[in-house]
Amino acid sequence: MNAEILTIGNEILIGQIINTNSVWMAQQLNMIGVSVVHMSSVADNRNDIIKAFEDASNRANIVLITGGLGPTKDDITKKTFCEYFETHLVIDEDVLQDVTAIFAKKNRDLTDLNRRQAEVPQGSLVIRNKNGTAPGMWMEKNNTIYVSMPGVPYEMQAMLLNDVIPEIKKRFELPFIHHKTILTQGIGESFLAELISDWEDALHEKGIGLAYLPSPGMVRLRLSANGRDELELIRKIDEEIEKLKPQIDKYIYGYEEYGKEQPKIEEILGKLLLEKGLKLGLSESCTGGYISHLVTSISGSSAYYNGCIVPYQNEFKNALLKVDNSIFLEQGAVSKECVEAMVKETLVVLNANVAIAVSGIAGPGGATSEKPVGTTWIAVSDGKKTISKKFIFGDNRLRNIHMTATTALNMLRKLILNIED
Amino acid sequence: MNAEILTIGNEILIGQIINTNSVWMAQQLNMIGVSVVHMSSVADNRNDIIKAFEDASNRANIVLITGGLGPTKDDITKKTFCEYFETHLVIDEDVLQDVTAIFAKKNRDLTDLNRRQAEVPQGSLVIRNKNGTAPGMWMEKNNTIYVSMPGVPYEMQAMLLNDVIPEIKKRFELPFIHHKTILTQGIGESFLAELISDWEDALHEKGIGLAYLPSPGMVRLRLSANGRDELELIRKIDEEIEKLKPQIDKYIYGYEEYGKEQPKIEEILGKLLLEKGLKLGLSESCTGGYISHLVTSISGSSAYYNGCIVPYQNEFKNALLKVDNSIFLEQGAVSKECVEAMVKETLVVLNANVAIAVSGIAGPGGATSEKPVGTTWIAVSDGKKTISKKFIFGDNRLRNIHMTATTALNMLRKLILNIED
Repeated sequence: MNAEILTIGNEILIGQIINTNSVWMAQQLNMIGVSVVHMSSVADNRNDIIKAFEDASNRANIVLITGGLGPTKDDITKKTFCEYFETHLVIDEDVLQDVTAIFAKKNRDLTDLNRRQAEVPQGSLVIRNKNGTAPGMWMEKNNTIYVSMPGVPYEMQAMLLNDVIPEIKKRFELPFIHHKTILTQGIGESFLAELISDWEDALHEKGIGLAYLPSPGMVRLRLSANGRDELELIRKIDEEIEKLKPQIDKYIYGYEEYGKEQPKIEEILGKLLLEKGLKLGLSESCTGGYISHLVTSISGSSAYYNGCIVPYQNEFKNALLKVDNSIFLEQGAVSKECVEAMVKETLVVLNANVAIAVSGIAGPGGATSEKPVGTTWIAVSDGKKTISKKFIFGDNRLRNIHMTATTALNMLRKLILNIED
Repeated sequence: MNAEILTIGNEILIGQIINTNSVWMAQQLNMIGVSVVHMSSVADNRNDIIKAFEDASNRANIVLITGGLGPTKDDITKKTFCEYFETHLVIDEDVLQDVTAIFAKKNRDLTDLNRRQAEVPQGSLVIRNKNGTAPGMWMEKNNTIYVSMPGVPYEMQAMLLNDVIPEIKKRFELPFIHHKTILTQGIGESFLAELISDWEDALHEKGIGLAYLPSPGMVRLRLSANGRDELELIRKIDEEIEKLKPQIDKYIYGYEEYGKEQPKIEEILGKLLLEKGLKLGLSESCTGGYISHLVTSISGSSAYYNGCIVPYQNEFKNALLKVDNSIFLEQGAVSKECVEAMVKETLVVLNANVAIAVSGIAGPGGATSEKPVGTTWIAVSDGKKTISKKFIFGDNRLRNIHMTATTALNMLRKLILNIED
């Protein structure tokens, strides 16, 4: 079964936004065994949209479309849909209720422009939007399905996962594809590839695909196989993972299965803290609150998270976390002594059972001859045991912040589980 | 003059890599007055490539192509080029020298596969690659130009800037395109559209395009026009912006000009703090460190940023920021009284001239009958003047965090600049 992805919007063609929707949709389709054969982007222009629809019908069974559905005048998509599908716009009462409820909640009146968000081409199957005002629309012509969704990523993502993919699975007989992803932290892509090269060769002979998916501080290893027998596929992949485990056990922090939640390190750590009844405190210098942001991005984190101190100047490392001023003079703020003093006092000030402290040179400024940009010290402690480590990440400020955060969260996970490096 | 961008490669269609080449090429073309009318991605497949070439010739004067030129894939792409352009491959002696030199430098022998990198379709204009082994190729058919470049971003970028763009400018007489974007915060897309609808109508009559680009908490308004007279276009767009200003002045936090840096609110505030010699302190409850992360994502922020307290439990709002326990009992932690007490003490504890404090219900849990999810209080203060405001954002946790952050940063900017709401 073939799919095509079409994104509508001048902002893509003038290079103002990166088209992340297409890559995300392609991943989701591939995971359920649908091949994406074409991707294209066209302007908010009637002729271009119609031409793209016609071309797509020759290539694909289903066309996923995003963009062009905002309430403003630059969007002509819905009008063009009606023309292509030879129909007209009607108010969808359910959508109108949704839109009205959103505005009522904000204590705002519904304008005419807002009301028009509830208009859909007659005959289309409406996909309600739980996160915004523009509904999705499922339409058909010449044996090709066209699904139009808003361009706002989280609105589109919820619709695709909750409504569109289940509907595709219902209508088409797809081969079963099983993916399982091993989440690793603390080893780079090329080193990992060298380490597991024999295992990987054997894998290919068994018809199992392997993809390396690197992101700052971590590499995800995705194993994929397809066939008719779901249980057999699951068994086959689990068997291979069991063979690999002894080689890379200390780098593995979790697993991901398609269709289930994709666990992030902050989520895995959060569950662990909750299970063990531990309260977490943080102090962050170079990461400037990013670790705290990751921890609190998980809903329910207030059950195990006490808070954070970001002492962005040495004066506050001293005033708030009692780091002795002699440390700044002798070892500097990016040192074992500094992060160990920080982590110790974080446990006290935030009345925590476990804590993380980080201090580093995120860059581009701040480097010395002994401490290049990327130099970072991380300490984790449960009050009894404190582990501190030095890392030299890289040149890119944001990447250093991200790598420090994921590394620190995993160091605490390992401390709690008593996993040696 | 119209251009089309075509990327070739299975890795794009399976969603393994984000197509950043297309957005970068689109930016470069727009800046020299070339309109990109279509972007597409196809697999490493003969039929798909030929069809894409044919379709492009109906739409564009020039087609920029990347990908498909690696030493293993070039079989199919270059062979397909020869088929489409009705020619055959020949060794280009200059390229062979380049490739040989690269391998000599690495002390490696040239394999047959490597030698074939020097093959190009006869009759094509060769673009030498200073950063890799695959050459670029400039070919023509039916009045359409096709430029094939490698997919490795920095190899392609050097070719486009040094060779392709100068050649385009030589061959075509290009109009000048000017874009200027107004950055607004604090008003939703549809309300903004209603407010400026008369101005927008007049704009279209003058040949100026307008696009609404929303993101959490803010809307960017992009004005675009093209013509022969660069200064006239700049004047025309500035004149329209001047007309609009009185209507939406309090929502504008900055401007963006095409090709220049795109300023973020945290950057604009950072510059302002630096200029005025002010030190910033933060205390964040519901945003959990995200505002601090935004502030410290800007390099050089240590010049104006002192730090942050994240008191994620009431106990620490009391212990670290002296919020009276009676406030939690009487008004609750999400209240004017709480954020005002927090902001006041933040100035003291972090020895700051200006401060932000936020407390809210990010969701999905934590709502009460009086305070739905999304309810957020923000206070900003310079010690003399304190402004606090209540917002009801929405249902989505991360979006609430993002909206609170951008709103809070802009509230502080307005306080410093003495801009009334």
